[in-house]
Amino acid sequence: MILFTSDYTEGAHPAIVEKLASTNMEQTVGYGEDAYCEEARGYIRRECGREDVDVHFLVGGTQTNMTVISAALRPHQGVLSAESGHINVHESGAIESYGHKVLSIPSADGKITASQVKEACISHREDDSFEHMVQPKMVYISHPTELGTLYTKAELVALREVCDAYDLYLFVDGARLGYGLMAPGSDVRLADLARLCDVFYIGGTKVGALFGEAVVITREELKKDFRYIIKQKGGMLAKGRLLGIQFAELFREDLYYQISGHGISMAMKLKEGFLEKGYKLFIESDTNQQFIIIPDEKLEALKEKFVFTYWQRLDDKTSVIRICTSWTTKEAAVDALLAEI
Amino acid sequence: MILFTSDYTEGAHPAIVEKLASTNMEQTVGYGEDAYCEEARGYIRRECGREDVDVHFLVGGTQTNMTVISAALRPHQGVLSAESGHINVHESGAIESYGHKVLSIPSADGKITASQVKEACISHREDDSFEHMVQPKMVYISHPTELGTLYTKAELVALREVCDAYDLYLFVDGARLGYGLMAPGSDVRLADLARLCDVFYIGGTKVGALFGEAVVITREELKKDFRYIIKQKGGMLAKGRLLGIQFAELFREDLYYQISGHGISMAMKLKEGFLEKGYKLFIESDTNQQFIIIPDEKLEALKEKFVFTYWQRLDDKTSVIRICTSWTTKEAAVDALLAEI
Amino acid sequence: MILFTSDYTEGAHPAIVEKLASTNMEQTVGYGEDAYCEEARGYIRRECGREDVDVHFLVGGTQTNMTVISAALRPHQGVLSAESGHINVHESGAIESYGHKVLSIPSADGKITASQVKEACISHREDDSFEHMVQPKMVYISHPTELGTLYTKAELVALREVCDAYDLYLFVDGARLGYGLMAPGSDVRLADLARLCDVFYIGGTKVGALFGEAVVITREELKKDFRYIIKQKGGMLAKGRLLGIQFAELFREDLYYQISGHGISMAMKLKEGFLEKGYKLFIESDTNQQFIIIPDEKLEALKEKFVFTYWQRLDDKTSVIRICTSWTTKEAAVDALLAEI
Amino acid sequence: MILFTSDYTEGAHPAIVEKLASTNMEQTVGYGEDAYCEEARGYIRRECGREDVDVHFLVGGTQTNMTVISAALRPHQGVLSAESGHINVHESGAIESYGHKVLSIPSADGKITASQVKEACISHREDDSFEHMVQPKMVYISHPTELGTLYTKAELVALREVCDAYDLYLFVDGARLGYGLMAPGSDVRLADLARLCDVFYIGGTKVGALFGEAVVITREELKKDFRYIIKQKGGMLAKGRLLGIQFAELFREDLYYQISGHGISMAMKLKEGFLEKGYKLFIESDTNQQFIIIPDEKLEALKEKFVFTYWQRLDDKTSVIRICTSWTTKEAAVDALLAEI
Repeated sequence: MILFTSDYTEGAHPAIVEKLASTNMEQTVGYGEDAYCEEARGYIRRECGREDVDVHFLVGGTQTNMTVISAALRPHQGVLSAESGHINVHESGAIESYGHKVLSIPSADGKITASQVKEACISHREDDSFEHMVQPKMVYISHPTELGTLYTKAELVALREVCDAYDLYLFVDGARLGYGLMAPGSDVRLADLARLCDVFYIGGTKVGALFGEAVVITREELKKDFRYIIKQKGGMLAKGRLLGIQFAELFREDLYYQISGHGISMAMKLKEGFLEKGYKLFIESDTNQQFIIIPDEKLEALKEKFVFTYWQRLDDKTSVIRICTSWTTKEAAVDALLAEI
Repeated sequence: MILFTSDYTEGAHPAIVEKLASTNMEQTVGYGEDAYCEEARGYIRRECGREDVDVHFLVGGTQTNMTVISAALRPHQGVLSAESGHINVHESGAIESYGHKVLSIPSADGKITASQVKEACISHREDDSFEHMVQPKMVYISHPTELGTLYTKAELVALREVCDAYDLYLFVDGARLGYGLMAPGSDVRLADLARLCDVFYIGGTKVGALFGEAVVITREELKKDFRYIIKQKGGMLAKGRLLGIQFAELFREDLYYQISGHGISMAMKLKEGFLEKGYKLFIESDTNQQFIIIPDEKLEALKEKFVFTYWQRLDDKTSVIRICTSWTTKEAAVDALLAEI
Repeated sequence: MILFTSDYTEGAHPAIVEKLASTNMEQTVGYGEDAYCEEARGYIRRECGREDVDVHFLVGGTQTNMTVISAALRPHQGVLSAESGHINVHESGAIESYGHKVLSIPSADGKITASQVKEACISHREDDSFEHMVQPKMVYISHPTELGTLYTKAELVALREVCDAYDLYLFVDGARLGYGLMAPGSDVRLADLARLCDVFYIGGTKVGALFGEAVVITREELKKDFRYIIKQKGGMLAKGRLLGIQFAELFREDLYYQISGHGISMAMKLKEGFLEKGYKLFIESDTNQQFIIIPDEKLEALKEKFVFTYWQRLDDKTSVIRICTSWTTKEAAVDALLAEI
Repeated sequence: MILFTSDYTEGAHPAIVEKLASTNMEQTVGYGEDAYCEEARGYIRRECGREDVDVHFLVGGTQTNMTVISAALRPHQGVLSAESGHINVHESGAIESYGHKVLSIPSADGKITASQVKEACISHREDDSFEHMVQPKMVYISHPTELGTLYTKAELVALREVCDAYDLYLFVDGARLGYGLMAPGSDVRLADLARLCDVFYIGGTKVGALFGEAVVITREELKKDFRYIIKQKGGMLAKGRLLGIQFAELFREDLYYQISGHGISMAMKLKEGFLEKGYKLFIESDTNQQFIIIPDEKLEALKEKFVFTYWQRLDDKTSVIRICTSWTTKEAAVDALLAEI
């Protein structure tokens, strides 16, 4: 069976595995204060084009989301998110477990717009009972989104402006960031995120690392005591160097971009292959998640050799499936799938 | 100015004020363990037609909601509620502050149906990522709802059945319960709630008391250690007898029903008055909240003598207002209002 | 039976009951935004000698403590308290329920000293693992303490200084504040608290009101959005005027001081009576709680006519009891007790 | 410089690194539902001598503690722990962050006794205000403790009995369990823990793994929905197989015991070396943490070649240091240290 179910079905890029092995018996201090973490921080600052950002390494995405949000908000404040946002639907209530409401905003494509954010803030402020309602204080977006879509730089600028106008933090979940950075036509670079967001993270788990997310904090007031919060939320890895070593490999040169680019080219090949054979897309995605509309009988046939995610039923005879590529997808696997459709 | 803004603009029913005054210098033990609380519990058990229910007295509605929900749920569990439910929109995130997600369900009339609940549970259970999603464990409804509407006994029975089928608790917010019990045509009595719900409360704050909500717990497993939770949530009134005295007055005989009935008859007179003059209702309500569609120019005129709640804009020239009556609304006030429309 | 068990065995001062009755049918807006609350705020600001303080009214002490602490602290911060502090032992974990550790400090007399606070801060800062430990950010003291003792002005000044030096908030729980202000020899006035604390409250529940605590916030950064937090914690009374009316009565003139003074004079009479008959005190208290060492056989005899709190066993034949007076203690009751010892 | 600061200064046992490398490009499902995790579970069940236990893999110790405790307790319940317990002092308030008070018990050697637990429960139950106090519901012990000490089987049996008598859960933090199991003279085996505890964990991070803790749940009621709680607390590793692979290596045969034994033999050599040269121990430990009393001048000299933990000052001229060995301590390093003292 070939798995197209997610972008974390394999281990890590071989260069990372080798480096972990070759450094294995070195002695270092713990908790992310070792030289490898410092090295990796340097590379990430370079890519961000800013020396004044704080960089922290955490293990996973849910952990990162709950740590950042809990660090940033006061008890009565909530975070605006697309209805389909990971924090709203797929984290077992991690954000609420630390006391904060996720204020969901309807979205067909996984994105939210500056005008939706503005509307939410105005509606909150103008309500007579505003003190009886959760105060919006942060905007959470994922880039790419859970539906594979991307924000343009102009959309991010607009979000930044509305956040400034209404005193909100802008937080970008970059669990799949590499696939966004390398998507054809996308004009958003790391330096743009570092300029436009208050805090964002660069996903490693789904992009070549065994695990790990690199949080970049640009806003001064969010930097304070962040390591306490990481520790409290269970996210401070004892052997912190494991994260430093991995991100150093990914960003010493251009490995992160290169392997993300591979994932994207496999996704584009798949997308074009399906389109050529007359299939329709459920949603237009230029990233490593492709949502394909597929007749149920075809779907059953494919299941014999391939595993993917059943996304939703479309009508009596048709469904939507999600196919995920990644940094490690083999071209042969893509060819095999395309040969069957 | 005459206020129709809410059902808590005045103090308490005179009988309650008198009783508080005449018992003022008595010495009693605190925290709801006095004889007045015990007396009131007896009356409420009688009205519920069950001796095996636990009755606790709390001060306010938000406090009661957060206490009940926090007592009942494990950390990963959430509570299903209409989108317009008080816990979802008007408690500044009190439920989330104790770690629980409010799982909102779309609703045009403030009610949710058994089939909506069923659908939410099935959708949760059948999802591959079910452990990554908040587990529905409680259904929260308000009766009357925030839109003045009411559940029928048949609808409550259907909710009970779906709760049994999917192992959910059924919790009824009765902040305005009196106005529901006395609404024309409603077939729901206290004994029905005591039979069909796992826990519900009888609102005093909006129905003749200075303050106070009487929680009735029928489900055995929810009874355990409930007083610890009340104390932890800040809801254990030192002079607990104040609550006992008030609920004893309301339920010794039929005061609660009688004064609720007055609120309803004032609401019905208003409703009919508006309808007779050609106004339209935004929503059909048989309880003490009336939602009237009104031209903006008329609205401005009314504001000179009356205060009510601006509910929402309907179109360029028309708005919806909410008019609230209560146990203490004067017929003269109703006549004055009707004379102006 | 005569109760000396607590300072909340009766209702409210008759002037308060009368005012509640005479204003009962007035219509006001809710949630503490009415004219009575504004009036009471004015009186309290006058007594504090500062116009720039925010004043909020809450229902009870536990609720007030959890609201203030939750509003002030970030997630990784804790509150220093005497081991015997109310928040540490008698609030069912209310502070922890909002995520904060109570950092307890040993204390024989219920008080903590500036040097203990300093030591706790230094010890935290100098520890290699400081980020793995809860960060002290607030000092909580009660005045009078749970053991009836009092801080001197000099001690409060010293605490203020250490709080400034280590960037801590100073929070005073004044649930029994009246009895502290009127204690013989105490040099602490309301204006001192308003000058030295960041936030404190004036207890009504135990000093003449049916219920109610008036929170005074002097520190600018603690004022922001405090009403959201009150609402979220379930402490925003719908008929907020009930609190305004009560505190206006207590502080329009000198009622609060006068009735507190009565409680103190009854306590001093009791204390002297016991001392004259050769009893010893467990702790020296000049406030309304007296802790008396008493032979077990005498204790049994007293129980026939009086109720008090069994505090602790001292040795095989001797115990400590707590006797509480209050604004409403009758001199005849005190005489009756003294006659029996 | 040679580090004796902690038991997580290196990576993982070479066998683990090799296995991670050789399985790196395999495709597996995520979240701990792969075959490697299942394999590892089987080995652990075998070692526990029970097939009816649930085994879950988490990343780190703080995360494991907060997940287990949050899963087990209701909001008003707390966990008894030695004052020096990791959850009480070194987790930045992680337990409190989920709402639970750590009820600390004084301890000179890091252990708590059955009679201390009994006393805490009796004292809680007999207090008139028991509902105003946090209810003890769990006993947390670490084995070995933070001071290197160990429980005997008889002590664990006594704790089990008192837990049964007072309806408490018994939870053992085994972050350093290997070093306890292999300590000279210890009579506690994995099967004893599986028989006597409700839940415990087997530490991997400090015993040969890159990271990872294996939670074993024996009590039926604690098993329910545990994976939801892991996910909510951010502890569900996407590439869960990384944990399965590591624990399979450690427990397929006897690697876990063997490498723990090495750490112990290095610790015993150090201990004897110090004793022979006339040094005194601060506390008697048979595990991998040794607490040595050392003159300050000697300490300064040692710092030139070795790093260890400064534990505390003893008197003007003497301090206590902690020296940690582990599965990977080189005998040459031990010899070098002993040569300098």
